[in-house]
Amino acid sequence: MPYTTAIIGGSGFTGAELTELLLRHPSLRLTQVSSDAHRGTPVAAVLPRLRTDLVFCRHDEVEGVESAFLCLPAGAAAQVAVRLLSQGTRVVDLSPDFRLTADEYERWYGPHPFPEMLPGVYGLTELHREMIAHARLVANPGCYPTAALLALDPLRGFGLQEVLIDAKSGASGAGKTPSEKTHFCTVDEDLLAYGVGGHRHYPEIAAGIGADSGGPSLLFQPHMVPVQRGILETIYVRLAETPSSGELRGIYRRVYADEPFVGICDGPPRLRDVTHTNRCRIFATVDERSGVVLLVVAIDNLLKGAAGQALQNMSIMLGLPEREGPLS
Amino acid sequence: MPYTTAIIGGSGFTGAELTELLLRHPSLRLTQVSSDAHRGTPVAAVLPRLRTDLVFCRHDEVEGVESAFLCLPAGAAAQVAVRLLSQGTRVVDLSPDFRLTADEYERWYGPHPFPEMLPGVYGLTELHREMIAHARLVANPGCYPTAALLALDPLRGFGLQEVLIDAKSGASGAGKTPSEKTHFCTVDEDLLAYGVGGHRHYPEIAAGIGADSGGPSLLFQPHMVPVQRGILETIYVRLAETPSSGELRGIYRRVYADEPFVGICDGPPRLRDVTHTNRCRIFATVDERSGVVLLVVAIDNLLKGAAGQALQNMSIMLGLPEREGPLS
Amino acid sequence: MPYTTAIIGGSGFTGAELTELLLRHPSLRLTQVSSDAHRGTPVAAVLPRLRTDLVFCRHDEVEGVESAFLCLPAGAAAQVAVRLLSQGTRVVDLSPDFRLTADEYERWYGPHPFPEMLPGVYGLTELHREMIAHARLVANPGCYPTAALLALDPLRGFGLQEVLIDAKSGASGAGKTPSEKTHFCTVDEDLLAYGVGGHRHYPEIAAGIGADSGGPSLLFQPHMVPVQRGILETIYVRLAETPSSGELRGIYRRVYADEPFVGICDGPPRLRDVTHTNRCRIFATVDERSGVVLLVVAIDNLLKGAAGQALQNMSIMLGLPEREGPLS
Amino acid sequence: MPYTTAIIGGSGFTGAELTELLLRHPSLRLTQVSSDAHRGTPVAAVLPRLRTDLVFCRHDEVEGVESAFLCLPAGAAAQVAVRLLSQGTRVVDLSPDFRLTADEYERWYGPHPFPEMLPGVYGLTELHREMIAHARLVANPGCYPTAALLALDPLRGFGLQEVLIDAKSGASGAGKTPSEKTHFCTVDEDLLAYGVGGHRHYPEIAAGIGADSGGPSLLFQPHMVPVQRGILETIYVRLAETPSSGELRGIYRRVYADEPFVGICDGPPRLRDVTHTNRCRIFATVDERSGVVLLVVAIDNLLKGAAGQALQNMSIMLGLPEREGPLS
Repeated sequence: MPYTTAIIGGSGFTGAELTELLLRHPSLRLTQVSSDAHRGTPVAAVLPRLRTDLVFCRHDEVEGVESAFLCLPAGAAAQVAVRLLSQGTRVVDLSPDFRLTADEYERWYGPHPFPEMLPGVYGLTELHREMIAHARLVANPGCYPTAALLALDPLRGFGLQEVLIDAKSGASGAGKTPSEKTHFCTVDEDLLAYGVGGHRHYPEIAAGIGADSGGPSLLFQPHMVPVQRGILETIYVRLAETPSSGELRGIYRRVYADEPFVGICDGPPRLRDVTHTNRCRIFATVDERSGVVLLVVAIDNLLKGAAGQALQNMSIMLGLPEREGPLS
Repeated sequence: MPYTTAIIGGSGFTGAELTELLLRHPSLRLTQVSSDAHRGTPVAAVLPRLRTDLVFCRHDEVEGVESAFLCLPAGAAAQVAVRLLSQGTRVVDLSPDFRLTADEYERWYGPHPFPEMLPGVYGLTELHREMIAHARLVANPGCYPTAALLALDPLRGFGLQEVLIDAKSGASGAGKTPSEKTHFCTVDEDLLAYGVGGHRHYPEIAAGIGADSGGPSLLFQPHMVPVQRGILETIYVRLAETPSSGELRGIYRRVYADEPFVGICDGPPRLRDVTHTNRCRIFATVDERSGVVLLVVAIDNLLKGAAGQALQNMSIMLGLPEREGPLS
Repeated sequence: MPYTTAIIGGSGFTGAELTELLLRHPSLRLTQVSSDAHRGTPVAAVLPRLRTDLVFCRHDEVEGVESAFLCLPAGAAAQVAVRLLSQGTRVVDLSPDFRLTADEYERWYGPHPFPEMLPGVYGLTELHREMIAHARLVANPGCYPTAALLALDPLRGFGLQEVLIDAKSGASGAGKTPSEKTHFCTVDEDLLAYGVGGHRHYPEIAAGIGADSGGPSLLFQPHMVPVQRGILETIYVRLAETPSSGELRGIYRRVYADEPFVGICDGPPRLRDVTHTNRCRIFATVDERSGVVLLVVAIDNLLKGAAGQALQNMSIMLGLPEREGPLS
Repeated sequence: MPYTTAIIGGSGFTGAELTELLLRHPSLRLTQVSSDAHRGTPVAAVLPRLRTDLVFCRHDEVEGVESAFLCLPAGAAAQVAVRLLSQGTRVVDLSPDFRLTADEYERWYGPHPFPEMLPGVYGLTELHREMIAHARLVANPGCYPTAALLALDPLRGFGLQEVLIDAKSGASGAGKTPSEKTHFCTVDEDLLAYGVGGHRHYPEIAAGIGADSGGPSLLFQPHMVPVQRGILETIYVRLAETPSSGELRGIYRRVYADEPFVGICDGPPRLRDVTHTNRCRIFATVDERSGVVLLVVAIDNLLKGAAGQALQNMSIMLGLPEREGPLS
């Protein structure tokens, strides 16, 4: 019998993606989708691609489900998570509310209502399955950190010294709320480096590679590009000992050999190879002239970088096979 | 010595386009650009493409200029126009405030503060030069009507019976104010028919072809397409007497023979042939199977459909040559 | 036990889409995919989105399958179809080779090798299920005609008098072969009316509404718009007797009440409501001013307009449920 | 009296851009435009945006002009340049044929017909005006190197140690020749890192910063993004001594204080601030966490990266003011 599940915050880009996935999942039954703004409106009226008779409820009307996904802004998720945990619901939180240490959270987002709960279990699926399996609450990673950390993790044994991440993201990464910066006439035919001096995903990446504790220097520079969805990161790494390109490729293949959603490529992956899928594709090579390790990694920010990974995490928490269901 | 000129409402798409034009005009000197929202901010800080030391002033600080362009929303322009006219300023109003009869204005926009001034001189340059030359205030036509009326006018002698306009516009036509409908992730990879049942540009077109007074039936159906700028209209016409395609082409060539900004094509014009120019390109043919006259017309909505035509009109009012200056 | 199936011509846009569908189908087992150009190359090397170990074979190496889909150019499909039919294979042909009468085929495409086989069973699924069920060979309709005929069919009882189809298609409709007209710098930020005077999909639509035999006058004008996939058609119809908008909506709802892939909307469908799905969404209303019936219909040209409908047709031929499998 | 000028290779993207510029130039009179492919066809028929009665001639029909621009592929330009030089024509060559040393040219492009002429005068306008003024033949820099070298030059006094260039270019950079990689359905909604292991613009950049002769390590990684025109480069630099962000900004402002086409920004420039202009906009800052100098530089690849800079260079060669004419 399928587990009941709910989405809190179902009208944004991530919530819509998750709704589309859950409606097609054989072992999860979506019983509630909330949106304070659209309360009382049929989900299919707001999201015409979806075939469902569900009607948006208020966030605080979500009750008694076995599992729940929180797609709320930073700060709003923590309270809801605590309420649902107290009802025995398993929670995957797609907000940043449980990703960081209390100190880092306060630095980037302001005071946290439950600092003693920080950091939560960081749900980078491929790296932390064990912890996820035992958790009641999982902090789903940010989109940029998901790509960066999956690409960088196999290099940790070689002594990371310097990490430069040049990240490119589509406009859905900026969220659905209208603003001049997401107007079609702003984004189209444009490119923009943003977040110079500090992006909120920096501390997640830094924590993941130990850059905040005597590890490598880290520079993370995001860009907005005129595509709807997808993240491509080109990562430049200096290592203490640099293997050959062949060794490198071999290591990546071994590390991710059994992973259904991570693939190692012989050349740079294109964004279009991963959009609308849950896949992460990675290319690793050594630039002979400079000795720099060059990584190119691609994911769909709304799937592997959000809703897809969240579903993987919930599957692990509930003991369901990750590949069952709509992820491809 | 150049004429002084001002732009009231200089931070929107049309205002920015006009500012770019006026800064390069040899016979007009832009002395004031207003924006209530950006008052006190350098124009170049808001519009980094522009090279100017001008600083935005408030709308009501515009004073004592020989000519002015109003780029304000419907309803806001009329008051400003009257104030400037009283100072002897020649005014081109890019809003709809003086385009319609009082009755039609009220039907589509609500009550007008100066109904006795309606309709103003309708500044469809190529058709109304005489009246424009003698006017102190010119109502600059809407973007869709500009394309439609330039394409339809040569057919009037043949007895228009039925006119169907399938219009496609880029996203700048929706204005700069952010909304979900202009979000990059809404517009990109999408197509949308909108304004079913009545678009505000309908009465302008209807008046222009006499559809509101016993003339042809008219259906005007606009669409939004994922381009930034430009309008392409495909127009289907039934005439009382239908000429051959050859005759048709000949008539169009004769009518627009001396027009620097209207060109007649041997095949359908592409949007890219006119964007970033003040040109209108028209193709006219007869569909042999159905007997329908098929017109395809293309303009840049921000230039020929707004700022460019406004500049033509002002040139006529001031006795300057239309081709002088930055229009191409 | 699943039926074996093959795709002849699997490297183009339609072939790739069909491969992606068939790899996820529970009752069809894809055993061969051919491409003369890529013969011997793994399918996943050419189409990295796909997860399969299949290797492209030559077209003439496809043998002994229970079902086959032909994604070949006009003229190339007929020969292959005949060869496979002689082996007892059920065939859905996505080319135009069996869609028209012999006369019309010759007029638009040149001589046909087997004129006595024309016209084949025209597989517009929702309208011709009975015939499809008994066929060994089905001609899959063109993308434009699929949208047009699904939208127009419910009006036939009212006496079609004049039909004007203003169709907009994404660039995948032009096929994968590189040319200046599909270069990114040609298509992007552009709009184009093409095929003036006659498009190859005209005779399919004309046959479907009887325009070639004393029926309504028909004008079909396609446009290329800068999207990858999807067709939106705005159709203007004069009827002998015009119902009210309410009646019209009611009729459409009744006609398509039991169709899983056709939906009737209360407002114009957007392209984004149907892309990456097999759905057709239709809006029907009466323009009060002109008395014209206005239809807006949207499909994904690669799915409902090609691979998706082909799969529906094959399901019917094999007695499988249409909704089983990957179509959504 | 204006100088006569010709464009050899006028039908590609760069040639078209240059034609548009020269038709509006007060001191250069375009008398011949060649295209072997379009010989005998009016220029306006191939490039409908242009207003000219010129007809394409063959490359070898260009004769007796005072100045000429070569927009030919690598290898084809050198022969034409030598022929024109012998007639006393001043030549700006937009191909790579005279940019490199003989050794480097052979490594990246193969044997050169006149190795004794290499390297030519490298026309990076802002850095080499003196040499350009005395040259009869100028090698116009590549688009990527133009942006990179203008951004990096002010840092040379600080001891460049490591330079990583993450470059993003629009699709016009790939040229007008159709191929699968420039198909709209390939480029749109995609991102791609290409040229891993070595791009032909590498040696130009390396020579410009001394990376090929004991200087800094250099990694240059280009990407294709779905825009038509424009290059944005994000450059990461390690210096022997790192100034503060404030000092850095001051240095850049001083270096380029008198340059009409180079601007220093207080934040990262957007592509849209420079497209359709000849400007280069640069942002320079120090990333406090890592000590890396971060540069962001934007140009229009077809103007400052090609036709615009070529026109600057020709103006210098002819003693004309650079700002005269159509460059903005």
